[in-house]
Amino acid sequence: MTNKPWQDKLIDIEPYVAGEQPQSADIIKLNANENPYPPSPSAAAAIREFDGNTLKKYPPIKPTELRNAVAEHYALDSSCVFSGNGSDDVLAAAFRAFFNSDMPILFPDITYSFYPVWCSLMKIPYKVLPVDENFEINIEDYAQPNGGVVIPNPNAPTAIGFGEEKIRRLLDLNRDCIVIIDEAYADFSGYSCVGLIKEYDNLVVTQTFSKSRSLAGMRVAAAMADPYLISYLDAVKDSYNSYPLDSIAVKAGTAAVRDEEYFRIVTDKIIATRQRVSEEMKELGFILTDSRTNFIFARHVSLSAKEIFEYLKSKGVYVRHFDLPRIDNYLRITIGTDEDMDTMLALLRSMPGILQG
Amino acid sequence: MTNKPWQDKLIDIEPYVAGEQPQSADIIKLNANENPYPPSPSAAAAIREFDGNTLKKYPPIKPTELRNAVAEHYALDSSCVFSGNGSDDVLAAAFRAFFNSDMPILFPDITYSFYPVWCSLMKIPYKVLPVDENFEINIEDYAQPNGGVVIPNPNAPTAIGFGEEKIRRLLDLNRDCIVIIDEAYADFSGYSCVGLIKEYDNLVVTQTFSKSRSLAGMRVAAAMADPYLISYLDAVKDSYNSYPLDSIAVKAGTAAVRDEEYFRIVTDKIIATRQRVSEEMKELGFILTDSRTNFIFARHVSLSAKEIFEYLKSKGVYVRHFDLPRIDNYLRITIGTDEDMDTMLALLRSMPGILQG
Repeated sequence: MTNKPWQDKLIDIEPYVAGEQPQSADIIKLNANENPYPPSPSAAAAIREFDGNTLKKYPPIKPTELRNAVAEHYALDSSCVFSGNGSDDVLAAAFRAFFNSDMPILFPDITYSFYPVWCSLMKIPYKVLPVDENFEINIEDYAQPNGGVVIPNPNAPTAIGFGEEKIRRLLDLNRDCIVIIDEAYADFSGYSCVGLIKEYDNLVVTQTFSKSRSLAGMRVAAAMADPYLISYLDAVKDSYNSYPLDSIAVKAGTAAVRDEEYFRIVTDKIIATRQRVSEEMKELGFILTDSRTNFIFARHVSLSAKEIFEYLKSKGVYVRHFDLPRIDNYLRITIGTDEDMDTMLALLRSMPGILQG
Repeated sequence: MTNKPWQDKLIDIEPYVAGEQPQSADIIKLNANENPYPPSPSAAAAIREFDGNTLKKYPPIKPTELRNAVAEHYALDSSCVFSGNGSDDVLAAAFRAFFNSDMPILFPDITYSFYPVWCSLMKIPYKVLPVDENFEINIEDYAQPNGGVVIPNPNAPTAIGFGEEKIRRLLDLNRDCIVIIDEAYADFSGYSCVGLIKEYDNLVVTQTFSKSRSLAGMRVAAAMADPYLISYLDAVKDSYNSYPLDSIAVKAGTAAVRDEEYFRIVTDKIIATRQRVSEEMKELGFILTDSRTNFIFARHVSLSAKEIFEYLKSKGVYVRHFDLPRIDNYLRITIGTDEDMDTMLALLRSMPGILQG
């Protein structure tokens, strides 16, 4: 196709190859960090009761009810909350709003794969800082001139998180740039740094409803920051796509965030399953990072990640294997229901070469 | 706030001022080109019957059922269809995918206000070509070196459209760039150039479900082009926000596009109302462009647009007035129900200084 007269005007981009998303009901899908439990019954009810006739109107340009609900959850003013169409939409808006410098932004080498993609899409210079041999982020590495910082806490796919002391140190080292903490998995860690936005006016915290709120299919996410930074996120949104959240997503998201009890039960259940399965996997010869997320990041003492991945897949259990430097011998396994995890554990036990716990 | 140490890293952007979106039920809202009729009953049913529990899973990365339905509507292969979160999302992806040149892209001076906004956001050079004194686009103006062309047909807010002969001329003049025809209002014009994508591999046609499909609140839109160009749109989408359409939007959009009969009835009704109201407005001293859309673009022989706008607003009828060069004495009035339009006409007749038809 390179002989087309308009070929030179197309974007220079690698076609994206999507991960496997098997749709069969027989399959146990532990490869997308989805929540195994359904969303809050009140979210489902909000959808059922939604008056489809009202869809003829545009949604509000600011989904106030959703932002109010998030603000209440974190005891913030609503002006500290931004919302968008999933974490990717919110993070991309933040990259555009806050990473406008000739100096590189900083992020870890092993982290969310979209950061470098957005940088190349938006022509943002960046520098990756290697995590250590235990996949730990060394905060002192971030004490260098930069155009911004983005770090997931907990990080993915390593599953490792850190607490307030390190976040404060990171922020103190970076008072002259915007620091984005991507808290996609924070609800499974017991720690969120959202409270620090009152102290650090350069801190932006993003969260998604796709994991702990079981709303991956509804595309809802939020960012929390000083109202001045939120006004920039809104200006970017309003200049790009003013209504990224449809009217039903606003209702379902609001209902989900207001159901604190259900959220607590589901999150605790996943954490308990994670702890139990982690112990059982250790007995089978797996070496795990200390997960603060809804997934496990693990390698096996003798079997390769690739062969375990293929074996589980052949038996209908999909986990995630990244064919990437440093982590190609690791598996990322989403925490499913206890029943699903038991199926996976039984399959692992049946694998030739596994240790017998 | 300019003394912040991180201020220089923020995007240089004008805060967007949203148009008035009064929420009161007493108000007649003719200012956002929304459809006055609800979406297809089958779209409402698809929402009602949606199993909220499935939202724990991500939507498919390609919403095949929606794209198939659009493809069938236009007798195309599904590989010729892209989909996104409203026209703005689809158009922004197209700007990014196809407008990568040092030469300016071309569009009319009076047109959709987001084109220059996206250009400045994405650093795309552009040149606006004035429409003539009757707001007509002169296709021959587009016979100049450029980095791409984007034209709405029909245009907004002028409401004027043109037929296949001019589109072909435009395409023949521009074989070495991508030409985007933004058909947000085409369903009210009786003409779409979608069929030409088989002949012109550089043509991209965008459409929205917000107008003729009454789904403004659901955020669904599509683009049609040669599969090679669609692969670029998907690559941009997959690199920016892979799942812009939530699972319910996919179902509702699919149901809406499959209900050809309802679509035809609603569209015909709006066109009939437009014709009737246009005639009545002429009798009251209005001068109208030849609308091919779901709105009227008009000025009055003696009263100023601003005073008519204020008068109607004071009576609870919101129309649109643009305080912009060349069009500041015009009103853009969305076609509502016959009843709503009769209320507006009665108000106009009651206005001091109006001609009595």
